[in-house]
Amino acid sequence: MAAISFARGAPSPELIPAATLAECAAAVAEREGARVFGYGPAGGYAPLRDWVAERHNVGSERVVLTVGGLLGFVLYATEQLERRPGRVLVEGPSYDRTLTIVAQKGAEIVPLPMDDEGLDPEALEAELRARRERPSFLYTIPTFQNPSGRTLSTERRRRIAEIAADHELAVLEDDPYGLVRFEGESPPALHSLEGGKLVTYASSFSKTVAPGLRTGYFVLPEGEAGAFEQRAASTYISPPFFAQATISEFIARGHFEPNLERVRLGLGARRDAMLEGLERGFGGHASWSRPEGGYFVWLDLGDDVDASELAGHAAREGVAFVRGTDFFPPGSGLGRSAARLAFSFETPERIAEGVAILAALVEL
Amino acid sequence: MAAISFARGAPSPELIPAATLAECAAAVAEREGARVFGYGPAGGYAPLRDWVAERHNVGSERVVLTVGGLLGFVLYATEQLERRPGRVLVEGPSYDRTLTIVAQKGAEIVPLPMDDEGLDPEALEAELRARRERPSFLYTIPTFQNPSGRTLSTERRRRIAEIAADHELAVLEDDPYGLVRFEGESPPALHSLEGGKLVTYASSFSKTVAPGLRTGYFVLPEGEAGAFEQRAASTYISPPFFAQATISEFIARGHFEPNLERVRLGLGARRDAMLEGLERGFGGHASWSRPEGGYFVWLDLGDDVDASELAGHAAREGVAFVRGTDFFPPGSGLGRSAARLAFSFETPERIAEGVAILAALVEL
Repeated sequence: MAAISFARGAPSPELIPAATLAECAAAVAEREGARVFGYGPAGGYAPLRDWVAERHNVGSERVVLTVGGLLGFVLYATEQLERRPGRVLVEGPSYDRTLTIVAQKGAEIVPLPMDDEGLDPEALEAELRARRERPSFLYTIPTFQNPSGRTLSTERRRRIAEIAADHELAVLEDDPYGLVRFEGESPPALHSLEGGKLVTYASSFSKTVAPGLRTGYFVLPEGEAGAFEQRAASTYISPPFFAQATISEFIARGHFEPNLERVRLGLGARRDAMLEGLERGFGGHASWSRPEGGYFVWLDLGDDVDASELAGHAAREGVAFVRGTDFFPPGSGLGRSAARLAFSFETPERIAEGVAILAALVEL
Repeated sequence: MAAISFARGAPSPELIPAATLAECAAAVAEREGARVFGYGPAGGYAPLRDWVAERHNVGSERVVLTVGGLLGFVLYATEQLERRPGRVLVEGPSYDRTLTIVAQKGAEIVPLPMDDEGLDPEALEAELRARRERPSFLYTIPTFQNPSGRTLSTERRRRIAEIAADHELAVLEDDPYGLVRFEGESPPALHSLEGGKLVTYASSFSKTVAPGLRTGYFVLPEGEAGAFEQRAASTYISPPFFAQATISEFIARGHFEPNLERVRLGLGARRDAMLEGLERGFGGHASWSRPEGGYFVWLDLGDDVDASELAGHAAREGVAFVRGTDFFPPGSGLGRSAARLAFSFETPERIAEGVAILAALVEL
């Protein structure tokens, strides 16, 4: 049997509406013909750009559709680090792929402390005051954070937007998981708050429709979308229009919300299976996050456990996860006892099984 | 009426097999389901990778499918400039978008002279001997070059492969136009020649199937595809599989060769219209390349004409082209009297009309 994967932040194939997408792709290709198979504006397929703009209450000229969220991050980080080289502030822990990109560009990564309410605004302000040079930008995943599953509280959002405005700090608000909420209320997006003028908002259709369509979207601060789109054009000419047109057709036919509801239910059941498994296997001996949405639970096994070692043992027992150290700058020594457990990919049954295997391995 | 565009290297919508692609997309999505809408290997859709490998007589492990050719160039140039910073050798003139990417990375661009037989091997060798430090890489478009339309002769190919081997020079052989040949024989690819071991071969399906599917392919030297694929994964996780699977289905159903024949005929008629128009309008007063394929003619108007000025006048008369200076490093002063004329986009009738307008403007 295939290994049980808590490693990859990928959706279960069951959660991808493949048959409906096939219909939408055929319909839009037949209707629009060569237009969706040619080059076009680097900012993406206009009807989908308009839809994103309307949902975020901004003009379409501020929206750029990218080839997936990560490549959009590359464009953003390149632009910011050219304008202002130096250090990039991140949550500790933060998304490993973006940390790698920032490190490859030669920037210093400064992880800021977070807790169950997300990034600590006082730590952010202290960092900004402690060093005279302004950082290049702050990278934050405020909702159902990767890897921790934590969500920044509304109060802290207001505070962080204020601090960013006071210090003229550029912020990238990365929000691929925000719409995949199983329970509770959505806090406001940073970019929409008082003080949010320097905040760029990023999300994608990878978690709400399908990752293989590689369609991210960026809502840029006023006056900044032109340079961002120009950079996209210089990097990949134009995005795959056919994929974007397929998503647009999916939305136009009314599939977006019902599909999202189905995805939420499917992921919610998986999250429940993981939390129940953790309670059963680790109750009283470890701590973990309890996300109201998204893909990830962050498990802290306590100082006695080395998660890298555990990952090795677990791999031999057929269970994969990513160790905590991968989500901090290399050599920082942080995250040693932590593990990121993705509940997005496996069935609830296999999740229960996998967590039980992990619990047995740490011999509680 | 819309302007007559000789500016963009884009195919006429007539040359894109949209209806057939729509059928292929629907069929492959229905058959493969979630598999083509999810994440997958960064190197691309396996059946298409295998097809490229077979055509180039290499193992599939040496092939990486990219999100379009240009982004593949970004990955290649980043890798090479990290290994060996410094200067990049190019043909003078060369593709403007790649020159911009190299310049943004802080490398020095060294344009080497070329003539109707392509890049001059003696100039390449002289440059390699003149400076002790090895360049980062040589970037060449040997067939139906962008922007000049020129093709490197077989003899020069052998000589350049030899020189590259002797000097341990990495070479990127960019060949998006090679299959779009209207007449004559294809010379051998550099990477397949004696001495071609350090040559990376790049092409794409943009000119043979459709550019909006954003599918390029790279054949890497032995042992180098792994790092290239890893860099692709770090940049965009995985490519749009649905687009790649659509191309694969298009090939599997036997459409590739018949479509290519149709594209060749359509482009050949356009090239003829442009060459006839040039003869009529500029005969005896200017010189131009006579490509056996591809998208472009390079028009040299002679020292008395400033092509930038002409571009301004032409725009007012409804004709667009790219001035020659854009294809040389900025400030080099080269290409002042030259123009790149793309014949790929307009109908033969509009091409004749556009060339006549240009001829009237230079008042011969």
